[in-house]
Amino acid sequence: MHKGRLFVISGPSGAGKGTICKEILENENIRLSVSMTTREPRAGEMHGVNYFFVNEEEFKRIIEERGFLEYAQVYGNYYGTPKMEVMDMMNDGIDVVLEIDIQGALQIKEAYPEAVFIFILPPSMAELRKRITGRGSETEESLERRLGETLKEISYIDKYDYCVINGELKEAVDRVAAIIMAEHSRVSEDVYKIIERYKEEI
Amino acid sequence: MHKGRLFVISGPSGAGKGTICKEILENENIRLSVSMTTREPRAGEMHGVNYFFVNEEEFKRIIEERGFLEYAQVYGNYYGTPKMEVMDMMNDGIDVVLEIDIQGALQIKEAYPEAVFIFILPPSMAELRKRITGRGSETEESLERRLGETLKEISYIDKYDYCVINGELKEAVDRVAAIIMAEHSRVSEDVYKIIERYKEEI
Repeated sequence: MHKGRLFVISGPSGAGKGTICKEILENENIRLSVSMTTREPRAGEMHGVNYFFVNEEEFKRIIEERGFLEYAQVYGNYYGTPKMEVMDMMNDGIDVVLEIDIQGALQIKEAYPEAVFIFILPPSMAELRKRITGRGSETEESLERRLGETLKEISYIDKYDYCVINGELKEAVDRVAAIIMAEHSRVSEDVYKIIERYKEEI
Repeated sequence: MHKGRLFVISGPSGAGKGTICKEILENENIRLSVSMTTREPRAGEMHGVNYFFVNEEEFKRIIEERGFLEYAQVYGNYYGTPKMEVMDMMNDGIDVVLEIDIQGALQIKEAYPEAVFIFILPPSMAELRKRITGRGSETEESLERRLGETLKEISYIDKYDYCVINGELKEAVDRVAAIIMAEHSRVSEDVYKIIERYKEEI
């Protein structure tokens, strides 16, 4: 049986990685990795579906056991990607997709460089500015700071395998789907097993 | 403008690389590299379409100028892939596909390692045996020799980037198409140009 692969979909916020991920999960035979967090569940959120909800003690224990592919502290709460969860799915032959910011992706690259790293880019800074302004949640000052931040983030693109520009959503989704399909045709250990089979057949 | 890429489709004879190539040429925005040969044109063959027909003196001159990505002598005739032809198309932003045996592909790997190397595998040795027998052109002895040759050829698979098993033709063609699409999303020099544009925009 094929081992599953880990696809890390990352990029600056506003590039549309969430929307692309949602489409990929609907159309491809792939599963989303469920994160772990110490924050309180919100109404309707379910343990094991939206997040694994744990207390800080438990979370810190897993950090010490190096049990996270990546983790971060945001506004006093911890968030992380449990390694075991992802590895179990891959060992069952299931592809896993992970939507994450650039800092998280760089941590995963350290912990598991065999993953496939896909950077989602906005079509232009002008378009990104428009998308962020459209959400209406930023002041002029924080908008400029965010765009500056985005430029810094984009400079990490050389750590990634692929770059998909999200201008037209359907095209971007098709590209990510093609990357997933192509990566399954990579010459890998699986191929060597096949060759052994040919040798036995002759 | 994007530079075109070179896709080398290769594999043992009987794996179906010719059929896959034909489908790819029909469906994708890609052009076939035209080979050069010293053999006489057959009825209906056109210079520049089927082959570039040249005399031996001309062919040997191009060999000496290192003007071939690969070449071989078969039954006294020379066959080769002119480098200039392929490079010109790629500089015009056109993808090029090249269908070639394993020896030729290994020569191209030396001359132009940036190409994308795709190995087409038959689904099994039993199926390959059936396909070759179906053509009816082999004796039992030459069949066994050919299958042994195929096994040796398959051992070169680790020089390739991708491996596509040609069981169901449509699936194999979809996989090759996905590889072409995915390779266009690779982080490359093109991406750095885009990043420069973002920086200027802000």
